[in-house]
Amino acid sequence: MKDIEEIIQELLKFRNERDWEQFHNPKDLAIALNVEAGELLELFLWKNSEDANKEKIKEELADVFAYAFLLANKYGFNVKEIVLDKIINNGEKYPIEKAKGNAKKYNEL
Amino acid sequence: MKDIEEIIQELLKFRNERDWEQFHNPKDLAIALNVEAGELLELFLWKNSEDANKEKIKEELADVFAYAFLLANKYGFNVKEIVLDKIINNGEKYPIEKAKGNAKKYNEL
Amino acid sequence: MKDIEEIIQELLKFRNERDWEQFHNPKDLAIALNVEAGELLELFLWKNSEDANKEKIKEELADVFAYAFLLANKYGFNVKEIVLDKIINNGEKYPIEKAKGNAKKYNEL
Amino acid sequence: MKDIEEIIQELLKFRNERDWEQFHNPKDLAIALNVEAGELLELFLWKNSEDANKEKIKEELADVFAYAFLLANKYGFNVKEIVLDKIINNGEKYPIEKAKGNAKKYNEL
Repeated sequence: MKDIEEIIQELLKFRNERDWEQFHNPKDLAIALNVEAGELLELFLWKNSEDANKEKIKEELADVFAYAFLLANKYGFNVKEIVLDKIINNGEKYPIEKAKGNAKKYNEL
Repeated sequence: MKDIEEIIQELLKFRNERDWEQFHNPKDLAIALNVEAGELLELFLWKNSEDANKEKIKEELADVFAYAFLLANKYGFNVKEIVLDKIINNGEKYPIEKAKGNAKKYNEL
Repeated sequence: MKDIEEIIQELLKFRNERDWEQFHNPKDLAIALNVEAGELLELFLWKNSEDANKEKIKEELADVFAYAFLLANKYGFNVKEIVLDKIINNGEKYPIEKAKGNAKKYNEL
Repeated sequence: MKDIEEIIQELLKFRNERDWEQFHNPKDLAIALNVEAGELLELFLWKNSEDANKEKIKEELADVFAYAFLLANKYGFNVKEIVLDKIINNGEKYPIEKAKGNAKKYNEL
């Protein structure tokens, strides 16, 4: 079984053992993802990247992934496919010759 | 090559072709992840889950995954490992007998 | 003294007594605002509005206001002025006859 | 009329003219606040504070304030009171002698 599939199976098992599917509608999963992204961000507050706690980053990033995978599963998205599609998409918004070495948003390039 | 490894390789190729590694410090990657999580959340604003636009959700969720994978790569985290570790961890915070069928936070169980 | 001016004076006094101005650059204040907004949002996770804890909402919303006021102060914005200006602005994006009774975003009206 | 009261009256007028109260439940207002906080944060992405666009910051911060005020109004909170109360509260979590000159979280002081 592929890595991503295996991760998702473990997440679903955890969820189902606790009978939590009833709470996991997409809107609340998107909220949960934002809450966890905020907790991850807090680890960088008032400091430089190198002073952030790597062990805690690992844990909060894992939570972000967990809800992202659950949301992908809820919609039946293939994670690899949607990310690779988005890369192609972004390649059009950020052509190399225009975007190289600068961090402007595509609508300001 | 495993799925996750392949996704990350494509993300790094995209980044390097644009010479963007200079901008991708962990703190800004965490900010980018929050910005994308916010754009995903906006798709559910003022509506029920079923009225949200699935095509746009796919794109915004892909962006969330992109920055989450880039952040994991930056720290050398193995995504499968950190998520499975977190599941074990959460299993202790949310024992089945206490957590089953209710959505309370662990410190209120 | 006006309400808003009085709130900001108290926030600055609190900050200065702790010698925290050195940390309060706009970027980190914007991060702090997001972190607090995420903590507020967490109070609504997996539940309906009416089941959220009003006492905690009060506290998290106060934190959101605190960073929003500090950010306004940092840039010398007059809060009343910028909000009233934005209302006029939004009135053009959301004309009453088009927006009445529907929650669509302005670019979908 | 006080500044804050006047701002809130203008926000309610704008909302009511569009018949939007039906969408403004506290949970969605908290989502809207997060979405706007994310848009504000995006203005600082990949850059230092001083390179962020002040004019856009003004607009996004105004949106943050708008939803924060609407949420306060929804619960009948007095904004000045809840912020001043939180300052007292935070004074206990961050006593001057411990917190002065350092940016640690209260549970790490």
